[in-house]
Amino acid sequence: MKMWNQFPREELSALRAELAKEYEALCAKGLKLDMSRGKPGPEQLDLSTALLTDWPGDDPRGWITENGTDARNYGVLDGIAEAKRLMAELLDTTPDHVIVGGQASLGLMYDVLIRAMLFGILGSTPWYRLPEVKFLCPVPGYDRHFRITEALGIEMIHIPMDENGPDMDLVEGLVRDEAVKGIWCVPRFSNPGGIVYSDETVRRFAALKPAAKDFRILWDNAYCVHDLYPDAPRILNILEECEKAGNPDLVYEFASTSKITLPGAGISVFASSPANVAEYRKRLGVQAISYDKLNMLRHVRFLRDKANIRAHMEKHAALMRPKFELVLDTLDRELGSLNIGSWTRPLGGYFISFSALPGCAKSIVEHCKQAGITLTDAGAAFPYGRDPEDSNIRLAPTYPSLDELRQAADGFALCVKLVSAEKLLSL
Amino acid sequence: MKMWNQFPREELSALRAELAKEYEALCAKGLKLDMSRGKPGPEQLDLSTALLTDWPGDDPRGWITENGTDARNYGVLDGIAEAKRLMAELLDTTPDHVIVGGQASLGLMYDVLIRAMLFGILGSTPWYRLPEVKFLCPVPGYDRHFRITEALGIEMIHIPMDENGPDMDLVEGLVRDEAVKGIWCVPRFSNPGGIVYSDETVRRFAALKPAAKDFRILWDNAYCVHDLYPDAPRILNILEECEKAGNPDLVYEFASTSKITLPGAGISVFASSPANVAEYRKRLGVQAISYDKLNMLRHVRFLRDKANIRAHMEKHAALMRPKFELVLDTLDRELGSLNIGSWTRPLGGYFISFSALPGCAKSIVEHCKQAGITLTDAGAAFPYGRDPEDSNIRLAPTYPSLDELRQAADGFALCVKLVSAEKLLSL
Repeated sequence: MKMWNQFPREELSALRAELAKEYEALCAKGLKLDMSRGKPGPEQLDLSTALLTDWPGDDPRGWITENGTDARNYGVLDGIAEAKRLMAELLDTTPDHVIVGGQASLGLMYDVLIRAMLFGILGSTPWYRLPEVKFLCPVPGYDRHFRITEALGIEMIHIPMDENGPDMDLVEGLVRDEAVKGIWCVPRFSNPGGIVYSDETVRRFAALKPAAKDFRILWDNAYCVHDLYPDAPRILNILEECEKAGNPDLVYEFASTSKITLPGAGISVFASSPANVAEYRKRLGVQAISYDKLNMLRHVRFLRDKANIRAHMEKHAALMRPKFELVLDTLDRELGSLNIGSWTRPLGGYFISFSALPGCAKSIVEHCKQAGITLTDAGAAFPYGRDPEDSNIRLAPTYPSLDELRQAADGFALCVKLVSAEKLLSL
Repeated sequence: MKMWNQFPREELSALRAELAKEYEALCAKGLKLDMSRGKPGPEQLDLSTALLTDWPGDDPRGWITENGTDARNYGVLDGIAEAKRLMAELLDTTPDHVIVGGQASLGLMYDVLIRAMLFGILGSTPWYRLPEVKFLCPVPGYDRHFRITEALGIEMIHIPMDENGPDMDLVEGLVRDEAVKGIWCVPRFSNPGGIVYSDETVRRFAALKPAAKDFRILWDNAYCVHDLYPDAPRILNILEECEKAGNPDLVYEFASTSKITLPGAGISVFASSPANVAEYRKRLGVQAISYDKLNMLRHVRFLRDKANIRAHMEKHAALMRPKFELVLDTLDRELGSLNIGSWTRPLGGYFISFSALPGCAKSIVEHCKQAGITLTDAGAAFPYGRDPEDSNIRLAPTYPSLDELRQAADGFALCVKLVSAEKLLSL
């Protein structure tokens, strides 16, 4: 098949007419499909049914923690011991480095930024008092990260990414500006690019020398065990690397069981240096008496340890792989040689990132919407929702059934072709 | 028995020597008793065992909400419909007035104040930009309320209370100051005074005309159904009264099931005008994807409706009444006619508030501590932990067993007598 940009104009025009007819037929089907959010499918949720049904079972003292605390009552600010051990193991660290939180790590990230705004970090000036505060935002990235910094009035600076992670030359340069206070990172299977930070990238992060003493790397290790394939690459342990580099306080790490057990009903973890953990605990003491200790116990009983978590994640992968492969096969087949788009082949995480011809993403998403196929808003993966190239589209294949996904992927490919043909004809 | 302030000095001195010996004997017992926090006792927690064991049971679709949402997955920012209905009924309002939150209403109160600081309220200037922000604090009050406003650098102003609630003449005067932005209220069975706001007090709150448009009453209805006796007085519905008075946006109401089902694993509610609820939802959307919907379902299945909640609360009362009465009987018997202290006889809530001779509270609490009896820190019920009279002591009788409580109450009475004798001798 020829690349479209080499097509004669009249040939492309005829093609467009044909695609327009196909699109009309697609719209007539009245589909209602959703590839917009990284939601596990129902069969993935079923993997954790025992979490809801098997505990506390017949054990009349099922809610007593290992050190004798009644998990039903008030208290234990930073998490019960067995949950701290489990979540520390998940992140390859020790319990004194972690605080176990509620059902969403997003809430923990919001909290640390709120506290930096109002109270500063380890004695620094509260950010609200500063004339400007800037954050580095590797793009494309996670829309909900950017919404928090946007809401706080923090200026967001795009950092391009390649297959090794963010452009570290740029990062190292920008952190010399004292107004730059942090960076959002999803270091493994980045959302949406699926990028895994290389060892060199992690080491350069750990060795950063920011002008601002209260600069923090927000290391959202959302997909730490979320491999799609057995040989998916691991990343270096950022906490260890920061310690080795003499920068123990540089990073706040986050993770949760949202995509291990149940989204919105899991447990989360904040991991950092003892100084950062102590400050976190102090501030948390104003805000809360405890998180839900019963849900921590539920998770400890069900997940047990990291080896068991890995075995559990293989079951997720077995359900997710066919969905990713279906979408990738469709893209290969329909768009493979046309030169009107490129896409990632992630080894883990929840997304495929699609790059359309510049100026086409919004129109493709809108065309899909008209045909009953919901995608994440174009631009959502960029600060302020603005993709300067209008090129990036995030595909989330996990929630629909295989049958729905087939229709959605076909429909998406058709919309890409139609919008691209129109674009090429308009040039 | 004579009142001690009428004792001849030498008689009092002999009494002190005798009490000192008794106190020595008490210390030798090596007690370890805790009357410090308003924690339900284990047998109260057992009332909600079915919450943990009976749901979802054998129902394979137990986690599907009434409108077909899978509560295990992401989404539903402001609470599932059945939980909104239940929590609205609890506060005698309608679901469009509520947002159902996570396991602690304290966190919701923290959140609304954080948002007022950083974003303002319904378009007002964010409080962090103002030269000063003040809050009215009826005293004695809830220490955790005061810790939040203290952490935010908000100046706290004492408001005395009588049996009808806060001194409303003072409140009405102070809200003419535009820097006064809110007031903390526990309107029914106030913590620790057990005061129930009179109808006139509630109506005067609803009719307040604060200079600050972003003044809010933080109405922590923590003990809305927490009656100890069948004839305990009710309060007027603040949401309705504010609407009637043409001030629908004046109040943020809060409650939770912490002391209905399980502390730290319940569900909470924010209730207010549609405008306030809409703003809350908007801000919450930056912070969270949802709260724990499975825990909402657990609660709906277990609590069902308000009539059932009231029946459930009678079981709590049956367990709590003997504990309150034991402490009150001890105080009556040991201190009844000595004129060295007075105390409340609450009809609901979790506390007895004790007023010692001025200047004695810290010493009494310290003496108790030395004897192995933990009380809430003296002064805790006042902003900044400073009771200007050093008189108030909060007693929390619910957690210890009756046997422990008997020893704790006897020990407390002894410490009151010893410290009071010393005080009177020092005058």
